[in-house]
Amino acid sequence: MIIDCHGHYTTTPPGVGRWRDAQVAAVTADPAHVGVKGAMAVTDDEIRQSLEGAQLKLQRARGSDLTIFSPRASWMGHHIGNEHTSRFWTEHQNELIRRVCDLYPANFAPVCQLPQSPGTPIQGSVAELERCVNEMGFIGANVNPDPTGGFWTGAPLWDRYWWPLWEKLCELDVPAMIHVSAACNEQFHTTGSHYLGADTTAVTQVLTSGFTRDFPNLRFIIPHGGGAVPYHWGRFRGMALDNSWDFDEAVSHLWFDTCVYHQAGIDLLVRVVPTSQILFGSEMVGAVRGIDPETGHHFDDTKRYIDAAPLTDAQRQAIFTDNVQRVFPRLQLPS
Amino acid sequence: MIIDCHGHYTTTPPGVGRWRDAQVAAVTADPAHVGVKGAMAVTDDEIRQSLEGAQLKLQRARGSDLTIFSPRASWMGHHIGNEHTSRFWTEHQNELIRRVCDLYPANFAPVCQLPQSPGTPIQGSVAELERCVNEMGFIGANVNPDPTGGFWTGAPLWDRYWWPLWEKLCELDVPAMIHVSAACNEQFHTTGSHYLGADTTAVTQVLTSGFTRDFPNLRFIIPHGGGAVPYHWGRFRGMALDNSWDFDEAVSHLWFDTCVYHQAGIDLLVRVVPTSQILFGSEMVGAVRGIDPETGHHFDDTKRYIDAAPLTDAQRQAIFTDNVQRVFPRLQLPS
Repeated sequence: MIIDCHGHYTTTPPGVGRWRDAQVAAVTADPAHVGVKGAMAVTDDEIRQSLEGAQLKLQRARGSDLTIFSPRASWMGHHIGNEHTSRFWTEHQNELIRRVCDLYPANFAPVCQLPQSPGTPIQGSVAELERCVNEMGFIGANVNPDPTGGFWTGAPLWDRYWWPLWEKLCELDVPAMIHVSAACNEQFHTTGSHYLGADTTAVTQVLTSGFTRDFPNLRFIIPHGGGAVPYHWGRFRGMALDNSWDFDEAVSHLWFDTCVYHQAGIDLLVRVVPTSQILFGSEMVGAVRGIDPETGHHFDDTKRYIDAAPLTDAQRQAIFTDNVQRVFPRLQLPS
Repeated sequence: MIIDCHGHYTTTPPGVGRWRDAQVAAVTADPAHVGVKGAMAVTDDEIRQSLEGAQLKLQRARGSDLTIFSPRASWMGHHIGNEHTSRFWTEHQNELIRRVCDLYPANFAPVCQLPQSPGTPIQGSVAELERCVNEMGFIGANVNPDPTGGFWTGAPLWDRYWWPLWEKLCELDVPAMIHVSAACNEQFHTTGSHYLGADTTAVTQVLTSGFTRDFPNLRFIIPHGGGAVPYHWGRFRGMALDNSWDFDEAVSHLWFDTCVYHQAGIDLLVRVVPTSQILFGSEMVGAVRGIDPETGHHFDDTKRYIDAAPLTDAQRQAIFTDNVQRVFPRLQLPS
């Protein structure tokens, strides 16, 4: 059983983009626009079609079994519009993920996005998390550490602002993947510097603040192999020693996925990060879609790198299957 | 001959901090404060004392010969005060570096900081660069890609704003290390997420824009081992292929230093980055000052990692000596 902890619905049918385009147009014309949730015109056949030639085909081709699946991260767009904009959009996107998982219960397990409008209380996100987990069977959430889209003017993860969300994650016993959305700051490239910078920033905030000591059951997945952190493992260990930060305590709350698209990167990851803190992931279909001319295989076919890395069978079993079951206790494997 | 491309004067005598504290106090009280350059009360003996027990001692202990030396990066503080604040401070800091190099010409070669106040024209930085190179024998400059200190509200490196500086660097045939200063945004930790995020951002801006094609002779040093980039070499190569960015052209303008504080990180760096684009560096005395309990040696004793990495003697010679001479053609080695 090979479980991919990091997949987004990046291939949604056209009705999704049409609904969002209309909403964005309305709130651009009138920033106070409320609108209505309305209906998203997407049929089950369109959903099947959008997945059969992409994620499902790639699961079969690459030999993974189940993908923990969430709305397209770059489309979360928390910086767009107001709280109503994000609430309606988020509800639709999460309900779409639920439909995907109902159509393919053996292939996908659902993770939600949260509304997270900048400047609004976190309670709206807590409510959507409860709805998704308690009413719709979701097993985790994506949390955007920078809903401003690259301006970083909100509260750091250690700020009391986030406390109600951390409490609810612990109460529901679900993890959060700390994952930004598109950058609206031209300094950053969304899937390059913004994603990787945010991953590094999230780990650093956990490490320097030690706030996870107040939440023994809080579990964060750091995507894209942890940004820059494993490559700079020595730097962070050394800074922790210099500053009396509890490195091991921080790491015990963090899981790094394997969305690192070359053998040398995966080899580094598995060499420095404890195996217990690594989850198989591919981010497929995601940021990089081509074939590596050096290998003849897709860059994001990360299972190949794990297969080739210097690991024992027990370690591979942990990374592919066991760890993710511990991190996502609500995950029910298909029988 | 082992040349360390990345050292900052982090151990300055107390007169430096006193001068700066008084200046910051004055401009805090009155944001329009101009002040005067005045004198910085630092004696030659104090300079000697500040270096003998630190950088010079460590050079001898670790076996490096010459450090390319610049003002303390975290103290550049471009976000503080106004254009006068940064100009006077920068002139003093650069003149102090000149004094260090005059006192120890066999041990240090000078690199300057630039005034770079947010919202001011780049011409002030061009003028200081000319002064340092033409009048004071400097061989390179540090350029802060985010003078706002972690809010990233200025112009990206590809923006025409920077053109006069890039032209002057090419005309003078000196490289720039792209290095941020302290973060004043609480989201970021200065020497952790801010430094590493900025390194990744700088590389991404070069890669996605291709602006270096207009400056064949422009040479950027990316500190801290290139941030997240070597660890995600496959991701960036893949994104470049997907988007028709010229990866090799971008890399030809970039040199990555070896300020990566563990063996696994250095092994990755030398495995994926062409040897021609790697420069020995330690950032000593810098962000991490302790001893790694796993090795018994200082984290930032990076020469040990290069010595132990799977490299040929010719490759080591390139990283320790030859590459830096190509990147810094104005560097005159002590006879």
